[in-house]
Amino acid sequence: MKQKQLQTLLKSPATWLSEGGEESELVLSTRVRLARNIEGRTFTHCAEASELESVRAEARDALEQAASMKDSVYLDMNETTDRERLILSERRLISQDMVKRFNNRGLVVLRGEKLSVMLNEEDHLRLQSFEAGLALNEAFDRVSRLDDELDGSLEFAFSDQFGYLTACATNVGTGLRVSAMVHLPGLVQNGDIRKVSDGLRHVRLNVRGSYGEGSGVAGNFFQISNSITLGLSESDTIMNMDAHIRKVLEFEKNARKSLLKEARSLLEDKIWRAYGTLRNARVLDSREAMGLISAVRLGVGLGLITDTGLSDLNEMLIMIQPMHLQMLYEKVMGPDERDRSRADYIRSRLKAS
Amino acid sequence: MKQKQLQTLLKSPATWLSEGGEESELVLSTRVRLARNIEGRTFTHCAEASELESVRAEARDALEQAASMKDSVYLDMNETTDRERLILSERRLISQDMVKRFNNRGLVVLRGEKLSVMLNEEDHLRLQSFEAGLALNEAFDRVSRLDDELDGSLEFAFSDQFGYLTACATNVGTGLRVSAMVHLPGLVQNGDIRKVSDGLRHVRLNVRGSYGEGSGVAGNFFQISNSITLGLSESDTIMNMDAHIRKVLEFEKNARKSLLKEARSLLEDKIWRAYGTLRNARVLDSREAMGLISAVRLGVGLGLITDTGLSDLNEMLIMIQPMHLQMLYEKVMGPDERDRSRADYIRSRLKAS
Repeated sequence: MKQKQLQTLLKSPATWLSEGGEESELVLSTRVRLARNIEGRTFTHCAEASELESVRAEARDALEQAASMKDSVYLDMNETTDRERLILSERRLISQDMVKRFNNRGLVVLRGEKLSVMLNEEDHLRLQSFEAGLALNEAFDRVSRLDDELDGSLEFAFSDQFGYLTACATNVGTGLRVSAMVHLPGLVQNGDIRKVSDGLRHVRLNVRGSYGEGSGVAGNFFQISNSITLGLSESDTIMNMDAHIRKVLEFEKNARKSLLKEARSLLEDKIWRAYGTLRNARVLDSREAMGLISAVRLGVGLGLITDTGLSDLNEMLIMIQPMHLQMLYEKVMGPDERDRSRADYIRSRLKAS
Repeated sequence: MKQKQLQTLLKSPATWLSEGGEESELVLSTRVRLARNIEGRTFTHCAEASELESVRAEARDALEQAASMKDSVYLDMNETTDRERLILSERRLISQDMVKRFNNRGLVVLRGEKLSVMLNEEDHLRLQSFEAGLALNEAFDRVSRLDDELDGSLEFAFSDQFGYLTACATNVGTGLRVSAMVHLPGLVQNGDIRKVSDGLRHVRLNVRGSYGEGSGVAGNFFQISNSITLGLSESDTIMNMDAHIRKVLEFEKNARKSLLKEARSLLEDKIWRAYGTLRNARVLDSREAMGLISAVRLGVGLGLITDTGLSDLNEMLIMIQPMHLQMLYEKVMGPDERDRSRADYIRSRLKAS
């Protein structure tokens, strides 16, 4: 039963991916996460199995009663395979850490994947919401509503002095992490990306290449997130980030305008070649595919390419990941075979669109 | 009037280009050239203008009576512009040397361009015939027939000991130069091209990158030609070359088979990417375009690409040259603009086909 629910969940990409949203030409998605722990319980990393088990059960009960989580699926991580967890991780529903450490862990996902809760990850509960485009307030409101609902049945570890207590000191306070995945090919092209990144760090925002720690920047996708959870209210955090991100988007728009003005032919050439390669290549590794999708995304944003759309490209970025590809083609594949399947999948998507 | 005839001649590519012919998947064209000089007249490079003038007139009269040259155009090189001569050179109707030294030179071209005669180039007459594909005998027969016809009205400089006398010692004897433009991407890919070239040189055949002296190898097109004109009859020259070229083609076919067997995905990928780039690029320099057309040509040969054909690609190779592009777009263009027009032209050709 669980297995079947998992399959159903994974078979199609998250619905929010294709919703567009504000500034969707430059922002793929917004994520808001709240870290919460249950008062009187040992933090996950120190807890024994029995305690983890009872935390999970308690949290699960609370989630079952939460109105926001109606029509959700519960997954016991012990019952999942390595591959299934890798797929969940590629969707950003669970952390890379949870792929490896899964005992007594759990995940509750609302259908459509806009809202989900990891159980016994670094913190007892990690509430997470996704929105398409730039939608910090919407994403925060959604996760905050669930937080309020849970607050009725669970007692969260809270200090009047510090705020919410978390397993790692970097989350203490609001326990809030807000991030937006932005697409900045213009700033990469004109070289200003470094200046912009430095500026963001200066105001305590983190910038990193897409798809998390460890991976280099691919496809000009960058994740901007807050690093401060202490001494700043939730609403100030959101307002602050929203303003800074909009500033970055303005820089990106100007960079695109300049590029179009100064090197229109070369820019158009690059975009159309990327499109031609995506529609024709028979072998595509992940990194190259992201780079090409990035260029086509820019082409859609500039109104050059109209045969495909942003939501198709967003979905593709998820589906071309190694585990998603193997799920899609229903077989275990080595890197070479995946590169061929990735090219096949992208071709079929771009021809159908 | 002449001007109009020239325009008509140049407006469309040579008809033989689209005729296919034997081994057309591997051989673009066959060219046969005969060098002839008129007995008792000074060789071109030592002759004064008045003598050149009378040689040209005499040769022209003879050509007008030759049955093979019915429906031909005569061009006085003095009446042509630099650009027109460059176009004629890109079509291989006149030599690069004649572009610069054009006084008292002339060209007679049969409509369709299968047969032509340069007047007062290095030799008084240079008879030249083109065929599509591998057709050494046909090309030789055609040029030889004209040679016979002219032999009635002109007395060619001939020595019983040496054969036909020519301005340069390398042509003395038969005055015959036979060449085939072959497409050898398989041998380039597997690295055997050097071995094959060395082998051909060993049997006194020249191999060089496409489109004449000075240019590097582009697009895996090679011109194979004989270097011996003395001590070997015309028919032996033809028979000999035909056998050697067929041997090279066999090597190429085997190379393609091996590539398909050992690296099918990568080969197909390369071919399809080239096709995608040709159909989408907005800027294409000459060298890259030839390389991509080469790959697509291989794809057509292997039956992968069916939306376009060899004769389209052959025509493209002519039309994407700098002067042809400027003629086509009816304006003088610098290199950057040409690169854009080249991409435009190729896109329109591949979309129409």
